[in-house]
Amino acid sequence: MATIALDAMGGDFGPEVVIPAAVKAVKKHKKLHIILVGDESRLRDCARQHKINLDKHFEIQHASQVVEMHDDPRHAVRKKKDSSMRVAIDMVKQQRAQAVVSAGNTGALMATAKFVLKTLPGIDRPAICTTIPSYGGHTHMLDLGANVDSSAEHLFQFAVMGSVLAEAVDNTHKPKVGLLNIGSEDSKGNAQVKTAHKLLQTGLQQGYFNYIGFVEGDDIYSDKVDVVVCDGFVGNVSLKTMEGVAKMISNMMRDEFRRTTLSRLSGLIAMPVLKRFKKRVDPRMYNGASMLGLTGIVIKSHGGADVLSYSNAIDIAVLEVEKSVPDHIRECMAPDSDRSLSANI
Amino acid sequence: MATIALDAMGGDFGPEVVIPAAVKAVKKHKKLHIILVGDESRLRDCARQHKINLDKHFEIQHASQVVEMHDDPRHAVRKKKDSSMRVAIDMVKQQRAQAVVSAGNTGALMATAKFVLKTLPGIDRPAICTTIPSYGGHTHMLDLGANVDSSAEHLFQFAVMGSVLAEAVDNTHKPKVGLLNIGSEDSKGNAQVKTAHKLLQTGLQQGYFNYIGFVEGDDIYSDKVDVVVCDGFVGNVSLKTMEGVAKMISNMMRDEFRRTTLSRLSGLIAMPVLKRFKKRVDPRMYNGASMLGLTGIVIKSHGGADVLSYSNAIDIAVLEVEKSVPDHIRECMAPDSDRSLSANI
Repeated sequence: MATIALDAMGGDFGPEVVIPAAVKAVKKHKKLHIILVGDESRLRDCARQHKINLDKHFEIQHASQVVEMHDDPRHAVRKKKDSSMRVAIDMVKQQRAQAVVSAGNTGALMATAKFVLKTLPGIDRPAICTTIPSYGGHTHMLDLGANVDSSAEHLFQFAVMGSVLAEAVDNTHKPKVGLLNIGSEDSKGNAQVKTAHKLLQTGLQQGYFNYIGFVEGDDIYSDKVDVVVCDGFVGNVSLKTMEGVAKMISNMMRDEFRRTTLSRLSGLIAMPVLKRFKKRVDPRMYNGASMLGLTGIVIKSHGGADVLSYSNAIDIAVLEVEKSVPDHIRECMAPDSDRSLSANI
Repeated sequence: MATIALDAMGGDFGPEVVIPAAVKAVKKHKKLHIILVGDESRLRDCARQHKINLDKHFEIQHASQVVEMHDDPRHAVRKKKDSSMRVAIDMVKQQRAQAVVSAGNTGALMATAKFVLKTLPGIDRPAICTTIPSYGGHTHMLDLGANVDSSAEHLFQFAVMGSVLAEAVDNTHKPKVGLLNIGSEDSKGNAQVKTAHKLLQTGLQQGYFNYIGFVEGDDIYSDKVDVVVCDGFVGNVSLKTMEGVAKMISNMMRDEFRRTTLSRLSGLIAMPVLKRFKKRVDPRMYNGASMLGLTGIVIKSHGGADVLSYSNAIDIAVLEVEKSVPDHIRECMAPDSDRSLSANI
C-alpha cells in the first residue's frame, strides 16, 4: 500500500484537476491512499461539486497558504511554511506519505524539497529527470533545468540516479547511459563534458552504471540509449526544443488539413490514423518529472496538466514508491555497495 | 555577377551531386559563374556522364587532394594544401571567387577557412549560423557547434553577426535578437548567459542590434524572434534535437499510415496534404549554414545533401554575395561605425 501526498492547490487549476486525477488514480491502484493537502473547505467544496466521495481512499490535510507561480523559491521556503506544497513535502519527511506530487512552481518545489528532505549521501544536487518518447519506447533524460554549470562530478551523480531510475521503473537490466555531446569523438565537446566522460568511464569500470559514451541530440529519440545525462541548461534547451518542434509540426499539419474542403475531407478520413499517431507522442502520457537524489520521492507535474496528465504523474509516484527508487540510489552511492548487485534491482 | 567556388569533391557524393546542383543554380542565377574545384579528370568524366556542357558558366580548377570526413582539422590545414576544399577557399582569399560552398568535413572547413581567410576585426571566432523553419517563417540560429565554452564577448559577436545576416538576407529592419536561456527572468541561466545578457543589453543601447532578451528552446520555432544566439554546444544539441524529433515523428506517421489496408488507403487520400506539409519543413530547403565572421563567404552544405539541397546552399552563397554580408559585419564592428545606419542595409 502506497500513501501519496498531493499538493492539491498547485498548478494552473489546483483541486479542479488534482481531485479528479486522484480519483482516477485510486481506481487504477486499488491499495493507493491519497492525502490531499490544501485549503480544507475549498477541497471539500470541489469534491462536492464533482460528486466525489472523499471518505474511502482519501484524507485531507489542511494547509493555509499557497505557493504562487511567481514566488521566489527562497520566499517559498522561508515564508510559506504552511503552504500546501510545504505541508505535502513535510508529510514525506514525517513518513506519513511515501511520495509527493505537485504541479506548483518548479523552483519552489525543488528548493523546498531539498530544504526539507535533504539530498542522499553522495548526492550534491537533486536533478530533474523525465521520460521522453523515442521511436521504439522512451528515454530518461536528466538534468532538465535544476542545475546549471554542473561539474563532472554532478554529471556522474546524474548518471547513477538516471540509471537506477531506468532500471527500477522499466525493469531494464543495465540500462544504457549516454553523455550528451556534440559529436562522438573524444576530442568533441566542452570542458565539462570532456572531464565528465573520463569520470563516467571510471564509473563504468567500477560497476556504477552501463556507460556507453557520448550520444547526440538526435539519439534521444532513437533507441540507442536508455538514459541521457546532461547539464540542466542543455537538457532544458533540448526539452523545450522538442516541445517547440512538436507544436510547430502539429500546427502546420492542422493548417494543411484545414486549407481546402478537399483537405478537410481527407483529414476526416485520415482521422483514426492521426489519432493513433497522436496517442504515441501524447505529452500527457509523459507528464511527471522525478526530482531525483532526495531522501524522498518528489514528482513534478506540468503546471497546466489536465486530469489524465496529472493522474499520469501520480502513476509515476506510485511506481517509484513500489520500486523504492531513493533506497536504490542510496545503495548504489554507498562506499561499500556491491554494485554488481545494484544492477539486479 | 557572382563567382562561387565549389569544393566539388566534398560531401558523401562529391561531383555526382555538386555538378548537377551547380547546373541547377546557374539556370536560376543567370549571371552566376561557378568554379568547380577538384580532380579535373573526374569532374570532366562526371559532367560527360550527366551530359553537362561545362563551357559556358563553368570553370574547372584542378586540386589533387581531398579532405576526408575523418581527417583531423589540423591535418587538413597542414598536410592538404592542394585539397579541393583548401584550393576553393584560397580562391576566395585571392578574390578569384566571392564565396565558397563545401559539403566536406565541417571541422576541417572551419579550421581551413579561419586559417586562410582570417576573422574580421573585432571577431574572435567564426560562428556557424543556419536557418531553421519556424511556424510563420524561419529563424537564424548561431552558433551551432563551431565554438564551445563561448564567453559573453563571443555571444555578443554572434549577436552582431546574426543580426547583420538576418537584416541582409531577409530584408528585415532591425531583426529581433534573442539570447537562448532556460527561463525569461534575469535570475535564470548559467554564468555565461547571465554575463552575456548584460553585455547584449549594452549592445542594444549602443545600436549594435535589436536585443529582445532571453528566449527559450520552444521560441526558436515560434515567430517571437528572428535571431537566436547561443553557445555552440547548446546550439548543436538543440539542432540535433530538432532533427531527432522530426525524424521520430515522420517515422511514426509512416508506421501509422502503413498499419492496415484502411490506413494505407487514407494515407493515399491524404497524400496531397501530407506533401504540402512536408514541403513546409523540408530540410533540403534549409540546407546551407553560413560560417560568419570571416573575411569571405563560406557556406557549409550538409554532407549527405542531394542536388536540390546542395543547390539551396549555392543560393545562400549567391544571396550573401549580393548582400556583401562580411562587409556589413565589418562595418557594424568598426569602432567609428554609425550603427543607426547599419540598421538600414
